[in-house]
Amino acid sequence: MKQIADLQDTDLQTLHRDVQAEYDAFRARGLALDMTRGKPAPEQLDLANGLLSLPDNRDHHSEDGVDARNYGGLQGLPEVRALFSTMVGAPPERIVVGNNSSLAIMHDCITWALLKGVPGAPTPWSQGPTPTFLCPVPGYDRHFAICEDFGIRMLPVPMTGQGPDMDEVERLVADPTVKGMWCVPKYANPTGEIYSVETVRRLAAMRTGAPDFRLFWDNAYAVHHLTDRHHAIANILDLCETANHPDRAFLFASTSKVTLAGAGLAFFASSPANVRWYLERAAKRTIGPDKLNQLRHVRFLKNEAGLLRHMEAHRALIAPKFEAVTSALEQRLGGTGVAQWTKPDGGYFISVDGMAGTAKRVVELAQKAGLALTPAGSTWPYGRDPDDRNLRLAPTYPPLKDVRIASEGIALCILLAAIEKTLLSSR
Amino acid sequence: MKQIADLQDTDLQTLHRDVQAEYDAFRARGLALDMTRGKPAPEQLDLANGLLSLPDNRDHHSEDGVDARNYGGLQGLPEVRALFSTMVGAPPERIVVGNNSSLAIMHDCITWALLKGVPGAPTPWSQGPTPTFLCPVPGYDRHFAICEDFGIRMLPVPMTGQGPDMDEVERLVADPTVKGMWCVPKYANPTGEIYSVETVRRLAAMRTGAPDFRLFWDNAYAVHHLTDRHHAIANILDLCETANHPDRAFLFASTSKVTLAGAGLAFFASSPANVRWYLERAAKRTIGPDKLNQLRHVRFLKNEAGLLRHMEAHRALIAPKFEAVTSALEQRLGGTGVAQWTKPDGGYFISVDGMAGTAKRVVELAQKAGLALTPAGSTWPYGRDPDDRNLRLAPTYPPLKDVRIASEGIALCILLAAIEKTLLSSR
Repeated sequence: MKQIADLQDTDLQTLHRDVQAEYDAFRARGLALDMTRGKPAPEQLDLANGLLSLPDNRDHHSEDGVDARNYGGLQGLPEVRALFSTMVGAPPERIVVGNNSSLAIMHDCITWALLKGVPGAPTPWSQGPTPTFLCPVPGYDRHFAICEDFGIRMLPVPMTGQGPDMDEVERLVADPTVKGMWCVPKYANPTGEIYSVETVRRLAAMRTGAPDFRLFWDNAYAVHHLTDRHHAIANILDLCETANHPDRAFLFASTSKVTLAGAGLAFFASSPANVRWYLERAAKRTIGPDKLNQLRHVRFLKNEAGLLRHMEAHRALIAPKFEAVTSALEQRLGGTGVAQWTKPDGGYFISVDGMAGTAKRVVELAQKAGLALTPAGSTWPYGRDPDDRNLRLAPTYPPLKDVRIASEGIALCILLAAIEKTLLSSR
Repeated sequence: MKQIADLQDTDLQTLHRDVQAEYDAFRARGLALDMTRGKPAPEQLDLANGLLSLPDNRDHHSEDGVDARNYGGLQGLPEVRALFSTMVGAPPERIVVGNNSSLAIMHDCITWALLKGVPGAPTPWSQGPTPTFLCPVPGYDRHFAICEDFGIRMLPVPMTGQGPDMDEVERLVADPTVKGMWCVPKYANPTGEIYSVETVRRLAAMRTGAPDFRLFWDNAYAVHHLTDRHHAIANILDLCETANHPDRAFLFASTSKVTLAGAGLAFFASSPANVRWYLERAAKRTIGPDKLNQLRHVRFLKNEAGLLRHMEAHRALIAPKFEAVTSALEQRLGGTGVAQWTKPDGGYFISVDGMAGTAKRVVELAQKAGLALTPAGSTWPYGRDPDDRNLRLAPTYPPLKDVRIASEGIALCILLAAIEKTLLSSR
């Protein structure tokens, strides 16, 4: 198909009529499909149903004889920290196991940094000038929501295909009010990007204006591969240590998209000083996490090989859904020049950049056709996409046949919005 | 036995020799017993072992068809809120179910009040003058630790047998910097006191200088009876509403000492405005709590009758331990005038007031004899008991025979410390 931009007005109007008719027909089907959130499908959760009757009555003690039913064990059971050590990217003694939400751990690190400060902080963040976070875009809306909620200023940084634009990052972190940066280093949400070794090295080595600057390293998709290429990223903790910035990185991970989304384990990992800091703060908040759920995970996954086998089973269920989306987009939009989209090797999202100024309209058109999409702009700080262009598609939850239908509909909406936009601007 | 204070010097010295000899003999036994924390015994946890294989693979959906394995459900499953409604003292729609720690919910309410303010707050607490909390004493060390950690000033208020001294409380809350008050209204930690209807009514009705004053109502022992007298307390939410202070009380409760100490459910309850506030804040922190653990609790306890039966089984296990402590104290210290102690109808602690200026020495003597006691002063803000008198005994965890031995040893230490003190002051 010809590039929309190259079409004569009359051809464009003809195309508009045809595509509008297709859209009306699609809309007439009265569908109700949801592609808004990165939520595992029931079949994916079924893979972990073994957890539902564990640890069972026969054995509720940890390897070192701790009764997992009682209070205590703030850092988490040693065997759990060992099992997830590679996934988290830290040795067991630098890992803390929390309850079911890594977002909660990130939130707590920010509230504690604001009220108490982090190791090396001249003052708590709330007592200095308004703190700023760097936010690679497009990014994760829930990261941005925490910053917005606590009045932390957010500066967007463009992604390059190798991770964030490091020249820009190095320029911005010179400002001492820049206290942190959100990073999803592997299969990033939503672009699927993988930070290159060079990007990670520069993040670890760069000079920051703030002595208490922290990388919020949300490695949410460490083992969430969609292809045979199991990409690895450089170890941020090691590189920070080498660069004499041992306390720079806060690592976060969880099993929400490994075992059970609502009943997984979350992890914090960092330098010895940061881990001491975290445990000291956490000790004021709780006597300990749910150790029975930790035992459940060890009994069920058994070891790292078991974890990786489990992730292969996920891949078998969701890779076809990602394929369905990208092929529908290719089929409908290939050659039109109205959109680019990612073909991620892992993670939970496909990121689509439509024609500038059309994202809101696409979501509106989709909504009228019974397709729920994440609000346009939600991948940007404050929900403001300056180009009104980025769309985040989450194909994991609906059944494959629905993903196919929804993707055709979304492609249609993207095309229709682009034609409308072109017609307007050619007037 | 004669009151120590009435003894002649020579009799006192004789007694000192005898008691010292007894103590040395006790110490020679080289025991290692722990009465420091209110921790359920393994036998108590066994009562809830049914949870360890639930919800099982057959049914992981809530009554309204929600898949408890997946994300969401921030407020908690309706059937869980219904099951614990009476225990918590609020209708289901005013209850929020958290993960395994009510302390964590209290901590979060304080961090959010500091950073964001509560409904009706002119500013976040951290942006006004140093906030102050009233702390009935003796009280719960972990409450005080949160305040100390965040620089919240603490003012002790004496307990009266009916709850805190309300004349004093009403006088102090006139100060607008007094933003909160810790309350354990039933079977209080550590005195076992039960707030009278009049006390609760006055707390609800009193005029506070701060428009955003909050009662932190930690009803940790609502169903934790040790006798046939199942004491009830007045409903603080209702009374606050009647007194036109509907948003005054934050309620907290948990099943840590009902089902499993490390894997229970925690609850927040309050007015509609406060619940909206809490959910709005919590939504930034997590996508939802562990709903599978909620289902476990419903499947296991079934209904309120099941909950109360379960608590009766606890009572059968721990009431004899409380009896062992009080009878050992009575036998050894009765008539000596050196100590008073509580005989609680519920809860987890026995509070002992020894002779002024001896508590630290008692803990030291006990420690040397292999008896671990909670540090003297820990029931007071900043760990400072001005009279160095109060001791908190936690008899639930050790086996009954150990509780007997430990109690005899503790009584001996209390007596010896009192004799030493009297000898010194008589010099």
